[in-house]
Amino acid sequence: MKVSVYRKAHFNAAHRLHNPNWSAEQNKRIFGLCNNPNYHGHNYELEVKVIGEIDPETGYVIDLKVLKNLIEEEVCQRFDHQNLNLDVPDFKNLNPTAENIVVVIWQRLRAKLDPKFDLQVRLYETPRNYVEYPV
Amino acid sequence: MKVSVYRKAHFNAAHRLHNPNWSAEQNKRIFGLCNNPNYHGHNYELEVKVIGEIDPETGYVIDLKVLKNLIEEEVCQRFDHQNLNLDVPDFKNLNPTAENIVVVIWQRLRAKLDPKFDLQVRLYETPRNYVEYPV
Amino acid sequence: MKVSVYRKAHFNAAHRLHNPNWSAEQNKRIFGLCNNPNYHGHNYELEVKVIGEIDPETGYVIDLKVLKNLIEEEVCQRFDHQNLNLDVPDFKNLNPTAENIVVVIWQRLRAKLDPKFDLQVRLYETPRNYVEYPV
Amino acid sequence: MKVSVYRKAHFNAAHRLHNPNWSAEQNKRIFGLCNNPNYHGHNYELEVKVIGEIDPETGYVIDLKVLKNLIEEEVCQRFDHQNLNLDVPDFKNLNPTAENIVVVIWQRLRAKLDPKFDLQVRLYETPRNYVEYPV
Amino acid sequence: MKVSVYRKAHFNAAHRLHNPNWSAEQNKRIFGLCNNPNYHGHNYELEVKVIGEIDPETGYVIDLKVLKNLIEEEVCQRFDHQNLNLDVPDFKNLNPTAENIVVVIWQRLRAKLDPKFDLQVRLYETPRNYVEYPV
Amino acid sequence: MKVSVYRKAHFNAAHRLHNPNWSAEQNKRIFGLCNNPNYHGHNYELEVKVIGEIDPETGYVIDLKVLKNLIEEEVCQRFDHQNLNLDVPDFKNLNPTAENIVVVIWQRLRAKLDPKFDLQVRLYETPRNYVEYPV
Repeated sequence: MKVSVYRKAHFNAAHRLHNPNWSAEQNKRIFGLCNNPNYHGHNYELEVKVIGEIDPETGYVIDLKVLKNLIEEEVCQRFDHQNLNLDVPDFKNLNPTAENIVVVIWQRLRAKLDPKFDLQVRLYETPRNYVEYPV
Repeated sequence: MKVSVYRKAHFNAAHRLHNPNWSAEQNKRIFGLCNNPNYHGHNYELEVKVIGEIDPETGYVIDLKVLKNLIEEEVCQRFDHQNLNLDVPDFKNLNPTAENIVVVIWQRLRAKLDPKFDLQVRLYETPRNYVEYPV
Repeated sequence: MKVSVYRKAHFNAAHRLHNPNWSAEQNKRIFGLCNNPNYHGHNYELEVKVIGEIDPETGYVIDLKVLKNLIEEEVCQRFDHQNLNLDVPDFKNLNPTAENIVVVIWQRLRAKLDPKFDLQVRLYETPRNYVEYPV
Repeated sequence: MKVSVYRKAHFNAAHRLHNPNWSAEQNKRIFGLCNNPNYHGHNYELEVKVIGEIDPETGYVIDLKVLKNLIEEEVCQRFDHQNLNLDVPDFKNLNPTAENIVVVIWQRLRAKLDPKFDLQVRLYETPRNYVEYPV
Repeated sequence: MKVSVYRKAHFNAAHRLHNPNWSAEQNKRIFGLCNNPNYHGHNYELEVKVIGEIDPETGYVIDLKVLKNLIEEEVCQRFDHQNLNLDVPDFKNLNPTAENIVVVIWQRLRAKLDPKFDLQVRLYETPRNYVEYPV
Repeated sequence: MKVSVYRKAHFNAAHRLHNPNWSAEQNKRIFGLCNNPNYHGHNYELEVKVIGEIDPETGYVIDLKVLKNLIEEEVCQRFDHQNLNLDVPDFKNLNPTAENIVVVIWQRLRAKLDPKFDLQVRLYETPRNYVEYPV
C-alpha cells in the first residue's frame, strides 16, 4: 500500500542570476532585473514528497519528524537567510535559478533518504513561479 | 479526451495515534504529542481527483454535484465533528494516521464511483503535512 | 536533467452552460444554475506546466518571461473580461465547461510552444473545483 | 467582553460596469474592459464581521449557524450564479461596482441582524481587489 | 511613529462545546455536532498584533523572536496537541468556544507583554470561521 | 457613503538589517541571521487601503487602474529586484526593517494620493510576519 507523504518548509535567501562566461550586456539581456549585481531575494517555499509503503506497525510511510529534521539540516540551515551565490558552496559554479536550486535540494535529500523511498521536490520562488524535480 | 477533475471538501475531527500492541512508553516515544490519550484534532482538507473522458453531450467528465454529494455521504457525514478513534468504525482496529485515513477514504469512494473513472485522493492534515493515494 | 516549470495566470470571464440540442427543461435539469440564460462568471486561475531539460548556459528550462507572454497572448488577451459563449470564437460550438476550456487552452499553447517541451494545464474555475489536461 | 466574529461565504456572478447617462465612448474610457456589453464575471468572496458581547451561557457572540443561514438567504441565494445587472433588482438602477455591491450586502444583512450587533462586510472581487463597508 | 506588527502561529487541539448547567437535549440543540461527547478538533491559526512605536536604534517595534517565543510559551506549549476541555486548566470551567479561547489567549499574552504595547488577537477555528479580541 | 478599497501588489528584494553605530557583535546579537553581510531576501506582499466616498457617477471610490499605476510607479519600480540597502536611496540612512519599509511606502503613496482619501498600508515580509501603518 504505497502512499505519497508531503512536508512543507521555507527559507529566505538572496540571489543573482549570472553567467560568468557572458558579457555584462548578454547577462542583462537574458536575465533582466534578476541580474542585478547587488542581488534581490525571495521567500522560497519547499514541498518535499516521499513515496513509500505504509508501515503496518506505525501507520506511517515515514515519521514526519524525521523528514522535517532532514529538510531542516540539509536545506534550511544551509540556505536560510543566506546569499545563495556568495554563502552557499553548492552555487559557487552553478547559476542559482529555481531549476538548479530544486535539483541541488533533491540531490542533498536523496543522499540522506533511505533508498526504499522515492523522492520528488517542488520549489516555489514566488507564488506564481515554481519548479519540480524529477518530472 | 481524458481530463482530471478535482473537487475539494473538508471535515473537522479528533484523533489519537496509538498502537495497542505497544507499551505506553513506546507509543509515547514513536507518536509523541500525537499519542495524547485525551486526543487532539485537525481541520482535514480533502482533494478528490476523478479522471475520465469528456462526455460530448455535457462537456463534463462527471457532474460535480454528483461527486460533491458522493464525498458528502461517504466521507463528511461519517467523519465530520467525530472522534476518528471512537466514533468511526473504519478506525476501530486501524491507527488513524493521515496515511491510513487517505486509504480508507479512497476505498469508500472507489466502491461507489463508476469503474470507468480513475480516482486519486489527497488529504491535508495540516497546511504543512499531507498525503496522497494512490501514488 | 528534466525539470517541470510552472507559471500561474488568471482571467475573469462570464459563461453559461448550455446544449443547443436539448430542450430548456433538460438544460435546466443537467446544468442547474449554470444554465442561467443571463450568464454568471468566475475568476479563472490558470497553472501552466512546461517540462524540459535545463539549459546549461542559462540554468533555465524556459525563460519565464517568454512563457508569461505566451500565456498572455494566447489566453488572457482572448478570454479576460469576456463572455466565453458570445465573445470567444473557440466556444461558438463548444460548451464552455471547465473541461472544455482547459483543453482549448492546452491546444492554443501547444500550437505555439516549442515541440521539445511537454505541456500540462490546470484550470481553477473556483477554489474548490478545478481540472487538468492531459491526465 | 466584546468580540468580533467572522464568517466567510462566496458567490459567482456576472456583471458589467456601465453608466446609462454616459455615451458609449465615455463608458469605455472610464470602465475599460469592465464595460463589455456581454458581461464578464467573478468568484466573489465575502467576509461578514459581527461584533457583540459573549453570551455567558453559550460562549457565543452569535450562533454561526444563524449567521451562515442569514448570509445564505440574504446574499447567496439572490446573487449566486446570477447576472447582477439583469437578474438582481438591487442593481436595476445601481452600477454593480464592488463598492456598491458591498454596501447593498451590508444593508441587506443590517436589516435582518439584531440591532445589538455591529456589522462590517468585506467583499473580494478578485484576490487582489477588495472593498470593505463601513470604514 | 506607531506601527502594527503581526506574527502568526498555530496549534492543533481537540475540544467539545458543552454547558454543564444544561440538559443533554439542550446542549445538543444549541451546539449540534460540536457537542459530540467524544470531541472533535481543529487546526487553530493565530494572528497576534502588537502596536507600538518604532525604536530608532533597531527599526523594530518589537523583536519578532521575542514575540514568537512569548506566543510559543504562553499559547502553543499549553494548547498544541491537547484536549482543551480536559488538558488545559483555563477551560476547566469555561466553554472552549472560539470566542472564549481568543479572550484567554489575549489575557495570557497581555500579562507578559510590556504595557507600552497595545495587543489584539485573531483566532481562526477554520478558514471560514474566526474571531478577534478586542474589537 | 465611505468605503475602503484595497489593492495588492508585490516586489522581490534583498536586504540586510544593520545599525552602523553598533559593533559587529551587537549587530549580530540583535539582528541574528538578518545581519548577514551578504544579504538575504523576501517576496514582499503589499496591501494598500484607500478610504473615501463612493462617486455616484462611477460607483468607484478610486479607479483601481489609477491606484495600481501609482503603486507600480512609487513602489514596485523602485524596490522590485533591488537591494534595499544598496540600490534604494530611501534606505541609505534607514535600516530596512519591515516597520521602516512600510512607513516609507506610506509616505511615498501619501505624497501622490489625493488628500481627500485616507491611506493605510500593510506589508508582508513573509506569510507569518507583517506590519501595518498607520495603526
